[in-house]
Amino acid sequence: MKHDLQLNQAGELRHFLTIEGLRRPHLEQILDIAESFAALPGRQVKKVPLLRGRIITNLFFENSTRTRTTFELAAKLLSADVINFNVGVSATSKGETLLDTLRNLEAMHSDMFVVRHSHSGAAHFIARHVNPGVSVINAGDGWHAHPTQAVLDMFTIRKHKGDFTPLRVAIVGDIQHSRVARSQIMALNTLGVTEVRVIAPCTLLPAEARSLGVHVYHDLETGLEEVDVVIMLRLQRERMDGALLPSAHEYFQLYGLTEKRLQRARPDAIVMHPGPINRGVEIASEVADGSRSVILQQVSYGIAVRMAVMSLTLGARAGEQRG
Amino acid sequence: MKHDLQLNQAGELRHFLTIEGLRRPHLEQILDIAESFAALPGRQVKKVPLLRGRIITNLFFENSTRTRTTFELAAKLLSADVINFNVGVSATSKGETLLDTLRNLEAMHSDMFVVRHSHSGAAHFIARHVNPGVSVINAGDGWHAHPTQAVLDMFTIRKHKGDFTPLRVAIVGDIQHSRVARSQIMALNTLGVTEVRVIAPCTLLPAEARSLGVHVYHDLETGLEEVDVVIMLRLQRERMDGALLPSAHEYFQLYGLTEKRLQRARPDAIVMHPGPINRGVEIASEVADGSRSVILQQVSYGIAVRMAVMSLTLGARAGEQRG
Amino acid sequence: MKHDLQLNQAGELRHFLTIEGLRRPHLEQILDIAESFAALPGRQVKKVPLLRGRIITNLFFENSTRTRTTFELAAKLLSADVINFNVGVSATSKGETLLDTLRNLEAMHSDMFVVRHSHSGAAHFIARHVNPGVSVINAGDGWHAHPTQAVLDMFTIRKHKGDFTPLRVAIVGDIQHSRVARSQIMALNTLGVTEVRVIAPCTLLPAEARSLGVHVYHDLETGLEEVDVVIMLRLQRERMDGALLPSAHEYFQLYGLTEKRLQRARPDAIVMHPGPINRGVEIASEVADGSRSVILQQVSYGIAVRMAVMSLTLGARAGEQRG
Repeated sequence: MKHDLQLNQAGELRHFLTIEGLRRPHLEQILDIAESFAALPGRQVKKVPLLRGRIITNLFFENSTRTRTTFELAAKLLSADVINFNVGVSATSKGETLLDTLRNLEAMHSDMFVVRHSHSGAAHFIARHVNPGVSVINAGDGWHAHPTQAVLDMFTIRKHKGDFTPLRVAIVGDIQHSRVARSQIMALNTLGVTEVRVIAPCTLLPAEARSLGVHVYHDLETGLEEVDVVIMLRLQRERMDGALLPSAHEYFQLYGLTEKRLQRARPDAIVMHPGPINRGVEIASEVADGSRSVILQQVSYGIAVRMAVMSLTLGARAGEQRG
Repeated sequence: MKHDLQLNQAGELRHFLTIEGLRRPHLEQILDIAESFAALPGRQVKKVPLLRGRIITNLFFENSTRTRTTFELAAKLLSADVINFNVGVSATSKGETLLDTLRNLEAMHSDMFVVRHSHSGAAHFIARHVNPGVSVINAGDGWHAHPTQAVLDMFTIRKHKGDFTPLRVAIVGDIQHSRVARSQIMALNTLGVTEVRVIAPCTLLPAEARSLGVHVYHDLETGLEEVDVVIMLRLQRERMDGALLPSAHEYFQLYGLTEKRLQRARPDAIVMHPGPINRGVEIASEVADGSRSVILQQVSYGIAVRMAVMSLTLGARAGEQRG
Repeated sequence: MKHDLQLNQAGELRHFLTIEGLRRPHLEQILDIAESFAALPGRQVKKVPLLRGRIITNLFFENSTRTRTTFELAAKLLSADVINFNVGVSATSKGETLLDTLRNLEAMHSDMFVVRHSHSGAAHFIARHVNPGVSVINAGDGWHAHPTQAVLDMFTIRKHKGDFTPLRVAIVGDIQHSRVARSQIMALNTLGVTEVRVIAPCTLLPAEARSLGVHVYHDLETGLEEVDVVIMLRLQRERMDGALLPSAHEYFQLYGLTEKRLQRARPDAIVMHPGPINRGVEIASEVADGSRSVILQQVSYGIAVRMAVMSLTLGARAGEQRG
């Protein structure tokens, strides 16, 4: 997949499709803009007129109410108009090709497509075909990428740790089927952390894991030693029906994060999870609700990060506005 | 259920969960504010900027297009942004707990949740857990309460009768399974009517009916004698499959409101119904479409009442505005 | 069906239900207003404040994400608020009559209903019962009419051909079941083209075809001779299960538009299709994607035409605005 598709000739973000190919200043720019949108604790994010008059279309080929809602909320807080287009129930069921659907949507004039699709590369495909001036945001494509989730994770880490350089970060769980993990690993390495570890059973680890620039652990307690950040992945329960996984109970015995295991990490380590959490499967309630959990802050920061990505790709910065 | 949850320390409405625990001035304040929003006959309700910049989330755990739409319309007429979050198809189906779903929604920053749930107490539960500054409106929880419906009924009565004090009001039908009836009885008694009657077969009357401060009738014609207001309840057709009810035809013979029966009421009596009506089951078409029916005015007033409740709980009064 | 229902006493459009009964100046007025909204090639349609403060309700009794989205987009570009009311999942499933549903919706105060229904005449029925000042737009009723589609086709033709007078236009495909075809034929004749041809197998031609003011052809190549505009209709695949049609392959052999067949038309002929297209059934990819295809322009112009119809029927013209 060509990844510089998302940059214009000046090297600025025009689409946001993947972390791959982005350099540190790109990510830092998004984090800085998100900072300007992030609410103070206990406060609401303030609505701003940056994207007034713009139309943003949520183009969801795969249902995800929660993800769609976070993008819809971010768009409305930027004063954009939002069209929700659930493609599953529409064109493709009429036998139309993806490209025809896309060309039709383009002809309808949207300023941005937020795309969710079960096939890897779908957002890239769409970005390659939209009109100049139209931006595409990848809201999750197959097992490939979920870059806004990764950036909101980076934002959460920076809020708590400040500098990325000295950090050791462990990502725990089903690496194999996680578009989130792939995006996180790239983002962490781009931002220059000391070490990224992945902790997973062999069956849930991609063959090319080591080539991603990570250290691989199969034992949770060893992997957690001295880390600053623990990122838990959501275990897809449907994997358990197949041969890849033992029961939820056995998984928890081996890879569930408990307070006791968390003591292996640094005393000020934070615990993250993209949600929704499976209590007692990948994480114990005591940890999810404990003082080191920043899981709900992730959700909240997610709005600010999506606002940043939307305004940045559409070229709207604070100070500039259009009718 | 703790009912002063909905008031702040100054005794002002912060949430709107139930009629229980509200005093007459609370209800009269809502009615007065609604008056300022209500359209003149044949006119449209005018859009006002009271909630500009605010986000209102419709959080429907149970599908109800009509109720959702009235709240969405009221919110948009107040210039708020609306997010429709149908939880049935989202988080809970992923095995997440209600509390986790809620905490996530909170973290997303909404100024208000309009909640519909099939379990009694759900809106209270949510109100107990939201951030300070976030309001919760109960749009119907199980058999417990549907307070905005009750207030719009009060608004309709006041529009036609002026003073509540001398009124006799009959509520007819399935009291047992009606969250609307419970809310109406409390509102009528709080507003100081002379008498509230409930008219129902024994099988559709809650055991504790008399403790609600009503007179119970099992015979429709006797119960209607000299009343000023007749409130018909919608008969849930699904009850008829069980043992609680005879056929729709037999029900109509005993409890259907006809012109002839309505003659027992006062000559200027009005007829109300929360809709949608079952013609020929609980009400004859001649009555539903007749000169004493105010059923469609109820719908119309419902928008003004919902606007009043939304602006009041969010602390936005005419004259005040925010960016 | 009474067709002057859509005009007020001054002969102005109040509803937009059908092409029938409209005179040439009506259609030209819509086309002229649409011209003012249409984007320059490669540009976005600009949002205008013409319908600020107005509420437009999409009242869809039949699911059609694409059509609903085009109207929603048009409404938002006019700064109106949009309520999506999918009636299929709501009132009618509770046993309520269409008229009761409608009266309820009316009471909710909408400035406009955009209606899609599987029964011919539904939009007329609704227009007959709404309050004064409320407009109804027909977004497709049964086999009867789909007038905004027809007008956007006329707009597309005018953009390419300028004057309607000298034109020969061929409509190809399932005339019998096409509400689009009926509306197109009337519009073309009202605008004074030289000749309208319909090209279809006997089984897909309505008995009264000739009374519509068209020339009938059963052979595609003969029918295409010297035409200026070719309008392909979408073949509903569900017809093929019945006795009306051979297989998709056989249909394409007889009535599929190929480059070779298109050579019978004039060298500057344009090819239109309402979408979504069935490649290899009614049209070859080489034609759909070819230089004479204006299919995607139709989609784009459709937004401008819907904006024109909405603002015209609500009496909002450029220059006028309301709070």
